[in-house]
Amino acid sequence: MDSTTTLSDLRDAVDHFVGARNWYQYHTPKNLAMSIAIEAAEIMEHFQWREVGESSEAMKDPTLRAEVADEVADVLIYCLSFANATGIDLSEAIYKKLARNEQRFPISTTNGKLGE
Amino acid sequence: MDSTTTLSDLRDAVDHFVGARNWYQYHTPKNLAMSIAIEAAEIMEHFQWREVGESSEAMKDPTLRAEVADEVADVLIYCLSFANATGIDLSEAIYKKLARNEQRFPISTTNGKLGE
Amino acid sequence: MDSTTTLSDLRDAVDHFVGARNWYQYHTPKNLAMSIAIEAAEIMEHFQWREVGESSEAMKDPTLRAEVADEVADVLIYCLSFANATGIDLSEAIYKKLARNEQRFPISTTNGKLGE
Amino acid sequence: MDSTTTLSDLRDAVDHFVGARNWYQYHTPKNLAMSIAIEAAEIMEHFQWREVGESSEAMKDPTLRAEVADEVADVLIYCLSFANATGIDLSEAIYKKLARNEQRFPISTTNGKLGE
Repeated sequence: MDSTTTLSDLRDAVDHFVGARNWYQYHTPKNLAMSIAIEAAEIMEHFQWREVGESSEAMKDPTLRAEVADEVADVLIYCLSFANATGIDLSEAIYKKLARNEQRFPISTTNGKLGE
Repeated sequence: MDSTTTLSDLRDAVDHFVGARNWYQYHTPKNLAMSIAIEAAEIMEHFQWREVGESSEAMKDPTLRAEVADEVADVLIYCLSFANATGIDLSEAIYKKLARNEQRFPISTTNGKLGE
Repeated sequence: MDSTTTLSDLRDAVDHFVGARNWYQYHTPKNLAMSIAIEAAEIMEHFQWREVGESSEAMKDPTLRAEVADEVADVLIYCLSFANATGIDLSEAIYKKLARNEQRFPISTTNGKLGE
Repeated sequence: MDSTTTLSDLRDAVDHFVGARNWYQYHTPKNLAMSIAIEAAEIMEHFQWREVGESSEAMKDPTLRAEVADEVADVLIYCLSFANATGIDLSEAIYKKLARNEQRFPISTTNGKLGE
């Protein structure tokens, strides 16, 4: 579905969910920042004791895969809520950041090395 | 731009950035889960000592707003990388999770109260 | 008990627990860093939607208090494990950091203001 | 120094630092929980792209070692502040948690396996 779903489609779905429950009162930047971090930690729980390479293998298991997709969705839902609560345009922010990273990590010198 | 940008547009942009630098070797689920959490913490830094309500006010400042948008973009870029590295469909995961949350938090009983 | 318990007392207790289960094989800096962050997020869950001031009030409730103490203990246990696995002296690191912070945030200019 | 330093020694040092700067007004459970998580993420940054085993090797480097010790100290300082702000006894919480974990993960069945 990613090829046909826009960021606004997802923002609208989250907006409807939050609004219908009268939850915008809790959706301040501070609370949502905590929420994003809490859900990010739940993704990590699935890989806490695994070897780095094994974590790729492990994702072939359909049960783990579904659980992890669910946690990644939670992080994204709170990011979409953050955008709705603050009016940030996410696509614009992402493209801007990628453009800046293109400058910071030139292809010619970076190839396979991690930059700072 | 969110109204015209699809998840695949963003995934492709991130895929191109990562691939061109030969960085997929580092993009395992374990490493990317850590990366999402690290960037989530950087969003929190901007609100660490603020009152909850004041965090909404503060976001009207253009400088803070740009810095925070930048950190949210970092979280999203790693989520997009996570999807690229593991083949998860993000829109599907988000809609599934929202549907489940609709069941868990019925509108009739939830109105303004936080569920568990 | 904090007035009579040394860091080494706690480190020894954690070392005995980990060693007896043959778990040192998992206790690498990378895994333990993730573990500290995961447990830190569990402290946050208890305060996610609260007002800043209300979070102090809430801690008077014995049930919440016990649950939160439990999560703080988890963070500390992993920090103690981190010290055991890497040989860091925690007291020395803490006193060093406080001494540096004394320089960074002079009392005369800081009074009630947050530094950078 | 860990063998001669009590938790109260460290709590007193942190209490003095915070009190002298008139910073207790910011030291609510919610803010300190965020602070612990933010510093935990800074430990992770040092191991973000490393292999699990290599993270142990890397800690032999004195520069990395000092930087990481510094980040672990930050996590602990905020845990000590949390205890000071809320009156939790950390040693008691740690021993209680270890006792419960002894029950949850019996030595006879756990040997080298991770429990749930």
